[in-house]
Amino acid sequence: MVLKNLLVGQSGGPSAAINASLAGVLAEGIASEKIGKVYGAVNGISGVLADHIQEMDMMENEELLHLLKITPAMALGSCRHKLAEIDSDPESYQKIEAVFDKYNIGYFFYIGGNDSMDTVDKLNRYFCRIKKDVKVIGVPKTIDNDLVMTDHTPGFGSAAKYLAVTVDEIIRDTSIYAVKSVTIMEIMGRDSGWLTLAAALPKLLGGSKPDIVALPEVSFDENAFLEQINTLFQTTNNIVAVVSEGIRDQHGNYIGEDTKSGSTDIFGHQYLSGVGKNLEQLIHAIIGCKVRSIEVNLMQRCAAHLASQTDLDEAEQIGRAAVKRALDGASGEMMIFRRVSDHPYQIEIDSYPIGQIANKAAMVPDTMLDLDNSSCREKAADYLLPLIQGDVPQIKDENGMPKFFIL
Amino acid sequence: MVLKNLLVGQSGGPSAAINASLAGVLAEGIASEKIGKVYGAVNGISGVLADHIQEMDMMENEELLHLLKITPAMALGSCRHKLAEIDSDPESYQKIEAVFDKYNIGYFFYIGGNDSMDTVDKLNRYFCRIKKDVKVIGVPKTIDNDLVMTDHTPGFGSAAKYLAVTVDEIIRDTSIYAVKSVTIMEIMGRDSGWLTLAAALPKLLGGSKPDIVALPEVSFDENAFLEQINTLFQTTNNIVAVVSEGIRDQHGNYIGEDTKSGSTDIFGHQYLSGVGKNLEQLIHAIIGCKVRSIEVNLMQRCAAHLASQTDLDEAEQIGRAAVKRALDGASGEMMIFRRVSDHPYQIEIDSYPIGQIANKAAMVPDTMLDLDNSSCREKAADYLLPLIQGDVPQIKDENGMPKFFIL
Repeated sequence: MVLKNLLVGQSGGPSAAINASLAGVLAEGIASEKIGKVYGAVNGISGVLADHIQEMDMMENEELLHLLKITPAMALGSCRHKLAEIDSDPESYQKIEAVFDKYNIGYFFYIGGNDSMDTVDKLNRYFCRIKKDVKVIGVPKTIDNDLVMTDHTPGFGSAAKYLAVTVDEIIRDTSIYAVKSVTIMEIMGRDSGWLTLAAALPKLLGGSKPDIVALPEVSFDENAFLEQINTLFQTTNNIVAVVSEGIRDQHGNYIGEDTKSGSTDIFGHQYLSGVGKNLEQLIHAIIGCKVRSIEVNLMQRCAAHLASQTDLDEAEQIGRAAVKRALDGASGEMMIFRRVSDHPYQIEIDSYPIGQIANKAAMVPDTMLDLDNSSCREKAADYLLPLIQGDVPQIKDENGMPKFFIL
Repeated sequence: MVLKNLLVGQSGGPSAAINASLAGVLAEGIASEKIGKVYGAVNGISGVLADHIQEMDMMENEELLHLLKITPAMALGSCRHKLAEIDSDPESYQKIEAVFDKYNIGYFFYIGGNDSMDTVDKLNRYFCRIKKDVKVIGVPKTIDNDLVMTDHTPGFGSAAKYLAVTVDEIIRDTSIYAVKSVTIMEIMGRDSGWLTLAAALPKLLGGSKPDIVALPEVSFDENAFLEQINTLFQTTNNIVAVVSEGIRDQHGNYIGEDTKSGSTDIFGHQYLSGVGKNLEQLIHAIIGCKVRSIEVNLMQRCAAHLASQTDLDEAEQIGRAAVKRALDGASGEMMIFRRVSDHPYQIEIDSYPIGQIANKAAMVPDTMLDLDNSSCREKAADYLLPLIQGDVPQIKDENGMPKFFIL
């Protein structure tokens, strides 16, 4: 009997951990006696549609596998292709089916965030409808940590660690002048404030800074913000504010100049940028003190040099578990983490029907929102701290530069 | 006989290495039998003028000294105070003299960049003129690496390492989509392109990226830049450009919208910002492809988590050497590094009359400017690589967060 083959793809935005999940899927696929060959889809579902499929047998090599694990971004490349509903674009599904037939794919793993889980859901429904035995499993990945039903998402811990450490350094940097100043750090996170909460870790752990933390879960009032700055200036010279790119006013309008253009990406999300610059100009105009905005930008999602060992280990484990789950017969599910305890930190890996996950967003809960409240700060710290633990030793080349996996 | 005391101050912008020089000065001062007490000036020369002087005897503690060495920014705080010429503001000099008398200061060390060396020069001339036996020595520090007469400046190596590693990660991050895109990274460096050259290390070491490197030493032509992008798009999808904040057109005008305001800082430097955004808008308007600009901002000067061990060690050594030099009777000099060889890397520490250093800028030499030329790339790599070597183990607190020295 000819064994079915495995296909894996990556989709959405990069993270420091998404290749660790890829390494996990590949390692488990190669190790399994029930799986034939292992293939990678170059540029995710777009690569499947274009028959851009790559043999990955070389990943039997343990050293190469480890190098892949600690390499940021996506070794297989990514895409932001959204599949239409099955009935409105049957041709695309038939094209995918033909490629799956060509490579005898019985197991498909898609590593990505919210939009990628939509693809997992639709593909699974298609294969169910045509009664084709292809197991489709989603492997979560997003620095935004906004997938529901899972305690957290791979990639978040490393981004959280980068932000916490960087904000801590910026706090020191901005503290040196005896001149009143405001430093605004604009953090990623469209709908949920998890990354901004992580950027607030120095405060959650008992520090006074960052002085201001603005999450999209709480409506943002410019006047209250200015008032808070004036009050803070009575006791500190150097105010640090960490602000989510997704903060909105009481009417639900994004704070940030560029959003006024109303442009949206192909998933219909409003294009965000400029919150920091916007607030910088506001403070400059109204308060008139020294003010600087810092867009932390891509660095927060690709800083492999500051990755969390816990994050990379878990990302690999959830990739391995996905293959086992598919071999057990599951399909149309996303792998999840369930937290068993904070002290000591303990998680279980499980899976959950994808239909109840795709296109939903996990927000920071009310119990962690009020950072003036010590029990909120403690809860948030208990949640975040285990995810950032452990440094990842980088492999260096002969020049002392980090070495990365390149396909 | 009552021994003279030591006073040390920090000035200008922060770096990851300036506290290592402070640790060196303090350690050597405490160890010397010829020096009485060691004092720190809080917020540099402004602190001296305000009699804000702090005893630093607690730095006898080796552990504390090490923690100081690996802490970014300035433990003593900084200032951007420029002393007027002696004859036009004698009162300030008399005030400084009175504070020096009060604390019986015989040795003054000022750790800083170009503008700080101006202060060293003036103070030394003042004490010479009034025939007062105070040794004044400058300890170089600037991430910009633009001090003349020294092979390089403490702080530059760590910033260079941060930039090289970060650009390498960004190259991976931007490579994942099969869509044409330009990513512009705006790098610090007002007059000289050393930091941007360091950001180009992945290219200097044989990579194809960053695709475009724009230093202030070469006049910038927007049309040639756009043409280069169109040419590059014939062979690559994802263009990465590293661009100095200080690039200017053929008429010497800064590229960057905010500079059009003509505002200047108190040293008369034009205020810079917006080069990246400016080029982003240009590409968006003329080429119309996906484009993003990243201002690397403060992170490049305070990222202690990615400091160069070589840089911190040398910063400490040059601080120690400054104290020895003063005890040998020198004054009105800045400490310098002289490179003995690249392979193996070897430097000597010496000193040089400050009058020939202050208010001059060291540029990237012609021999390293043409990065299309392999011998230029090799020369630049030979110069840069030794400076970024060695990782600095951070001290972690019970939460796994880096621990810093706080005065």
